[in-house]
Amino acid sequence: MDSILKVSCNDEKGLILRISEVIFKNGLNYENTSEFVDHENNRFYMRAELNGKVDTKELTNTLEAYLPRGAQVYCTLARKKDIVIMATKENHCLGDLLLRYESGDLGANILGVIANHNDLSGLVKKFDIPFICISSDNLERAKHENAILSELKNFSFDYLVLAKYMRILSPDFVGQYPRQIINIHHSFLPAFIGANPYKQAYDRGVKIIGATAHFVTNDLDEGPIITQDVVRVSHEMNWQQMRRAGANVEKIVLSRALDLVFDERVFVYKNKTVVF
Amino acid sequence: MDSILKVSCNDEKGLILRISEVIFKNGLNYENTSEFVDHENNRFYMRAELNGKVDTKELTNTLEAYLPRGAQVYCTLARKKDIVIMATKENHCLGDLLLRYESGDLGANILGVIANHNDLSGLVKKFDIPFICISSDNLERAKHENAILSELKNFSFDYLVLAKYMRILSPDFVGQYPRQIINIHHSFLPAFIGANPYKQAYDRGVKIIGATAHFVTNDLDEGPIITQDVVRVSHEMNWQQMRRAGANVEKIVLSRALDLVFDERVFVYKNKTVVF
Amino acid sequence: MDSILKVSCNDEKGLILRISEVIFKNGLNYENTSEFVDHENNRFYMRAELNGKVDTKELTNTLEAYLPRGAQVYCTLARKKDIVIMATKENHCLGDLLLRYESGDLGANILGVIANHNDLSGLVKKFDIPFICISSDNLERAKHENAILSELKNFSFDYLVLAKYMRILSPDFVGQYPRQIINIHHSFLPAFIGANPYKQAYDRGVKIIGATAHFVTNDLDEGPIITQDVVRVSHEMNWQQMRRAGANVEKIVLSRALDLVFDERVFVYKNKTVVF
Amino acid sequence: MDSILKVSCNDEKGLILRISEVIFKNGLNYENTSEFVDHENNRFYMRAELNGKVDTKELTNTLEAYLPRGAQVYCTLARKKDIVIMATKENHCLGDLLLRYESGDLGANILGVIANHNDLSGLVKKFDIPFICISSDNLERAKHENAILSELKNFSFDYLVLAKYMRILSPDFVGQYPRQIINIHHSFLPAFIGANPYKQAYDRGVKIIGATAHFVTNDLDEGPIITQDVVRVSHEMNWQQMRRAGANVEKIVLSRALDLVFDERVFVYKNKTVVF
Repeated sequence: MDSILKVSCNDEKGLILRISEVIFKNGLNYENTSEFVDHENNRFYMRAELNGKVDTKELTNTLEAYLPRGAQVYCTLARKKDIVIMATKENHCLGDLLLRYESGDLGANILGVIANHNDLSGLVKKFDIPFICISSDNLERAKHENAILSELKNFSFDYLVLAKYMRILSPDFVGQYPRQIINIHHSFLPAFIGANPYKQAYDRGVKIIGATAHFVTNDLDEGPIITQDVVRVSHEMNWQQMRRAGANVEKIVLSRALDLVFDERVFVYKNKTVVF
Repeated sequence: MDSILKVSCNDEKGLILRISEVIFKNGLNYENTSEFVDHENNRFYMRAELNGKVDTKELTNTLEAYLPRGAQVYCTLARKKDIVIMATKENHCLGDLLLRYESGDLGANILGVIANHNDLSGLVKKFDIPFICISSDNLERAKHENAILSELKNFSFDYLVLAKYMRILSPDFVGQYPRQIINIHHSFLPAFIGANPYKQAYDRGVKIIGATAHFVTNDLDEGPIITQDVVRVSHEMNWQQMRRAGANVEKIVLSRALDLVFDERVFVYKNKTVVF
Repeated sequence: MDSILKVSCNDEKGLILRISEVIFKNGLNYENTSEFVDHENNRFYMRAELNGKVDTKELTNTLEAYLPRGAQVYCTLARKKDIVIMATKENHCLGDLLLRYESGDLGANILGVIANHNDLSGLVKKFDIPFICISSDNLERAKHENAILSELKNFSFDYLVLAKYMRILSPDFVGQYPRQIINIHHSFLPAFIGANPYKQAYDRGVKIIGATAHFVTNDLDEGPIITQDVVRVSHEMNWQQMRRAGANVEKIVLSRALDLVFDERVFVYKNKTVVF
Repeated sequence: MDSILKVSCNDEKGLILRISEVIFKNGLNYENTSEFVDHENNRFYMRAELNGKVDTKELTNTLEAYLPRGAQVYCTLARKKDIVIMATKENHCLGDLLLRYESGDLGANILGVIANHNDLSGLVKKFDIPFICISSDNLERAKHENAILSELKNFSFDYLVLAKYMRILSPDFVGQYPRQIINIHHSFLPAFIGANPYKQAYDRGVKIIGATAHFVTNDLDEGPIITQDVVRVSHEMNWQQMRRAGANVEKIVLSRALDLVFDERVFVYKNKTVVF
């Protein structure tokens, strides 16, 4: 695959035909294509992996002109994304990303890590990645977020990945990066919204716990879900042991969600995703 | 295995010793034993599969006399349980139990099926099992439940299995059969409590749905969970398709929960279970 | 969805364009489309769910004329398939299909059941479906198979489903129904090929067992795999208990495989499948 | 839990009684106990988590004297194990262990890493752990293994963990550390024994791949299995992508197996394990 094309718009007849005319005229070949019509919203989604040399900007312009008004067209060369990671104290999600980055298996370059505690400083520096600690001690939320936002301005990133960043981001902050912030939530949403989901899961006596990767929106724990997974637990485990078991799922789910996003497999519409 | 022993009581030192003395004096042998102390409640649980001839009543009495006051001792020969099933219109959970009953794989005899609609009459009669339809049309809840209770009095059963019985049972009804009513709930509790969980799951855009088997208590959807399982869903599915996918999980989860209960593997304490 | 289109051929540029021209000229709309190029074999696969009134025969002819020579085009109205089931003694896979048939959830009509033992006669007749027992006692393989083939001639079926039919079919038999025979194998192929896989799994001490649904070809246990699933087992289980645990997976895997096949989601090429 | 007791011996009546007498006399309390009799081999296994102060050596001696001759008794304080890791070039399993070690979540101290290539040197040194590269270039197997054995003599370890060490160890080597060497195999054993299981899996067209953690014995890929897990794959993946998907399962399975072993939950008998 040389490039990926994503199109979404209101559905009508002939959309794939029009797209295919442009693809063919540009000498490109479809390699792996998915199309889906969401009847509830009369919405057309298409993702195609393309073979052949392409000027993505020109292709995008041509398609936008040729498709119904309002069509969202995105074409990109297959390339690594640029990301900034935010974290707090736990190392499992962040560490997993660092390892996959080092081995070249992560579809992204990690530009930097911002944390509100200093605990992960040593780990991040081992991988020669900038680590910026912005403590929230004695800072109002707005001031703390502004400090983070100033640092973020120094990076040109595609996505901001919350790898167990344990503070809630305000709508103002989130509004700066629509559909760019990805979070790993330590429960099988919508179960156990709020604080300490593992304690909640223990108290309820569930037999399975999970993790959820989602885009961050203004509604806490309510953003569009990208992927989820679960792991069995038992009466033998107290909630700290559940948290330990959950850590494995959290890192795998975050990793899988990022693969999907970096491969341009995810569309967001309203509060849901289409994942090809 | 010839018999199964279950003991629970407040924890103290020497409990397994005392139990083992009685077991040994009765010429029995442990085959498969599990013991667990719930520190939060200082509660001791033990389940043992025993080999050898035993007078279960006498063994129970001996143990009760020998263990701390309040100890709950239950000893039973390995035997099929007797159950009554309640259902509404869907055939997948009920049918699965009927098939497993016919092949001898279900650890229970099905004494009868009570439904509030007549749709499943044909299916049940195929298996030569009494089918009793008690319609709720034009009946207040209390009267409807009383009619069911009168029918239930005709059966001597160990468990009442709700195999997609789609009406809520009142505390009065539930109070008649404490820890004897087992329900299959069509969601991964505590997610999607209430009506039409598949519609809720679709609207939320989750990527995994599940089912939960639990004992029925007065708190709707809040009873002690026996077991749970999940299945992946995608944006391609509308909620009716999710329901269809969920049906497979529902029947498997109910089946597995009943196996656990019939094998005497489940202890209930407050709102949680210990499952050996 | 009103109809489904499947196309496979050697890959070249412009295939989706040509197909889309025909789709558009026929006033049809793509609803859910998948396309994939297998680079190893330079093979193009496309499946599309279509909306709109269509003469499937005419559409097929038009497409065949318009696509590269050798293209395999198949267009069908969304409809229930017709199947014949073969079984032996176990009721779990067969019974699951019968229940799903009765509830209208199976995408197929069950025309008849052929077994080499009489054990399942009662079950099948409950569902008012013809049951034909052709015992293999005192019959050479060829004669037994000929007897079955004569019976099969009386049915006009799309697929022959082996729902735990425990005899090996000869190449002659299989050759009569290329890509029409679907089998459920009671192991996670290619592990535990041959007799009594559960005994083999027990002896090896595996912690997970599985089941595999596949098309039957002349190479025993080597046909193209449609889908697989697994279940955890433990040292507590002897092989008979593993078989019991496996029965649940077998029926779910067969059921899922048939859904995929009946929804026209499966392409077979050489010894592998593309499953959209 | 303060200590863990493991006992295995030929089964006879009264074993738990005798053990419980000793436990009680030593003022200990059972917290979490599992017992199992393997009928095939008439073998008794018991694991107990104990509360209370204990002289493990004395307890072991007392029990050995009191139990049938040949009984294997092992009692240990709950403590971190000491391990040496062997690896080759891939960082995912090794890195996962390093991260869990750093966060204190791994139940072991990593004393050192020995590799036959230098690729992982940088990673290991980041965590301030000795890294020893012993290249096999221009070395016969025996000489290479002797070089490794000499290095291993410098460590006092409980387990030798093969975290994707890609060379086969000779019986001579394995014989030095019976039941102390744990390997992660990159397939769902016994499927795809031998070289490049992902290529084999791709060629066979399976829909699920897996990983197996096992003790290493003289029979390659045939050692006692500790745990296994799987992940779904599809026709979209070539074998390199399957390998990438498999890497996630490999690290999780190895991690889980080590948890089980370090928690003293695993018994080995002949070629199988009992895992409590």
